[in-house]
Amino acid sequence: MVVKVYGPAYGSPKRVLVCLVEKDIEFETVPVDLIKGEHKSPEFLELQPFGELPVIQDGDYTLYESRAIIRYYAEKYKSQGTDLLGKTIEERGLVEQWLEVEAHNYHPHVYNLTIHILFAPVLGFPPDEKIIKESEEKLAKVLDIYEERLSKSKYLAGDFFSLADLSHLPFTHYLVGSIKKEYMIRSRKHVSAWWDDISNRPSWKKVLTFGFPALKTL
Amino acid sequence: MVVKVYGPAYGSPKRVLVCLVEKDIEFETVPVDLIKGEHKSPEFLELQPFGELPVIQDGDYTLYESRAIIRYYAEKYKSQGTDLLGKTIEERGLVEQWLEVEAHNYHPHVYNLTIHILFAPVLGFPPDEKIIKESEEKLAKVLDIYEERLSKSKYLAGDFFSLADLSHLPFTHYLVGSIKKEYMIRSRKHVSAWWDDISNRPSWKKVLTFGFPALKTL
Repeated sequence: MVVKVYGPAYGSPKRVLVCLVEKDIEFETVPVDLIKGEHKSPEFLELQPFGELPVIQDGDYTLYESRAIIRYYAEKYKSQGTDLLGKTIEERGLVEQWLEVEAHNYHPHVYNLTIHILFAPVLGFPPDEKIIKESEEKLAKVLDIYEERLSKSKYLAGDFFSLADLSHLPFTHYLVGSIKKEYMIRSRKHVSAWWDDISNRPSWKKVLTFGFPALKTL
Repeated sequence: MVVKVYGPAYGSPKRVLVCLVEKDIEFETVPVDLIKGEHKSPEFLELQPFGELPVIQDGDYTLYESRAIIRYYAEKYKSQGTDLLGKTIEERGLVEQWLEVEAHNYHPHVYNLTIHILFAPVLGFPPDEKIIKESEEKLAKVLDIYEERLSKSKYLAGDFFSLADLSHLPFTHYLVGSIKKEYMIRSRKHVSAWWDDISNRPSWKKVLTFGFPALKTL
């Protein structure tokens, strides 16, 4: 059964795509156009009642929330492809801790920068300069903590690549690319080496071939 | 080894406490006073570099982020106490999905109400009426989706109590109590029955004996 992934052009679904590639799981993608409002159509809301990306369908099993989907596949295919959960329950605990840090301490700031620097001009609302400044300042403090952590272990949860690192890929790709804040990564030696490592994985390079929304039309 | 839980008076650490009670795991609590800034002390930042509650120490193992900690104990003691993860990998996937919904779709709105209705007057800053109004409206839409879901299954992830339900306890307790928005739960038949069910579990009643911050001093 081939896994169907909805919305491959966007950031959160790319968490799922890179996980599936790491786990050698076959999948196909179903485009969803947010600009046309396809995520609010009755058909889509049947799959995802909150009207958000991504969703997967795997036979008659439907699952949403990117970080839930990657946990599901990392566990279901534990011994296939890259092990993304650590070898022990204690290692998995640290993977969960850093996945939560990504979701609650890291992502909100990068997401704000994405909305107000990348998407505001395209969607035609004025970027909020105060939010941009505050988000950048808060993100810098978070990255200082990452720098300290990554000076002690090669990856966030320990000396193994895991879901915690993987989950950072799509939006950090925005940060160093179109958002033009690469200095935030490069000015921190260990964060910079970590980013080079994870963003050069063949899985992520493959996911990049699925493209990102063209900025002119989002 | 007895598990040490830091900050038992506050909402997020109560997720951990109720999980430990459900799993029959012995623990002791270590008070942390946010008003005195104890969460920003050098000693605390050694344990939790972001300066946030909760943290646990279990022998020489330290873990933070409430939803990571509850996953860790639910998995480590899978067959002890209440099973909180479901019986199959597919059930666990749904537990993960609804845990993520709690974190990303439900919690931010209840948290805003907590800050601006409960804590603003105590901490001496003006509550933001616009944020209160918007949060209440957004939470109502989320609860409509919960109502639909809970009309089809007794609990969020299926017909079994899980981490996904448990994670809602501390802040929904604020919502129906001091925030005075109980109508949001009671006006929805299935949400109301679900709340009665989960908030009457002996585990949660035990956790309530640990108290909440006295509002006059937070």
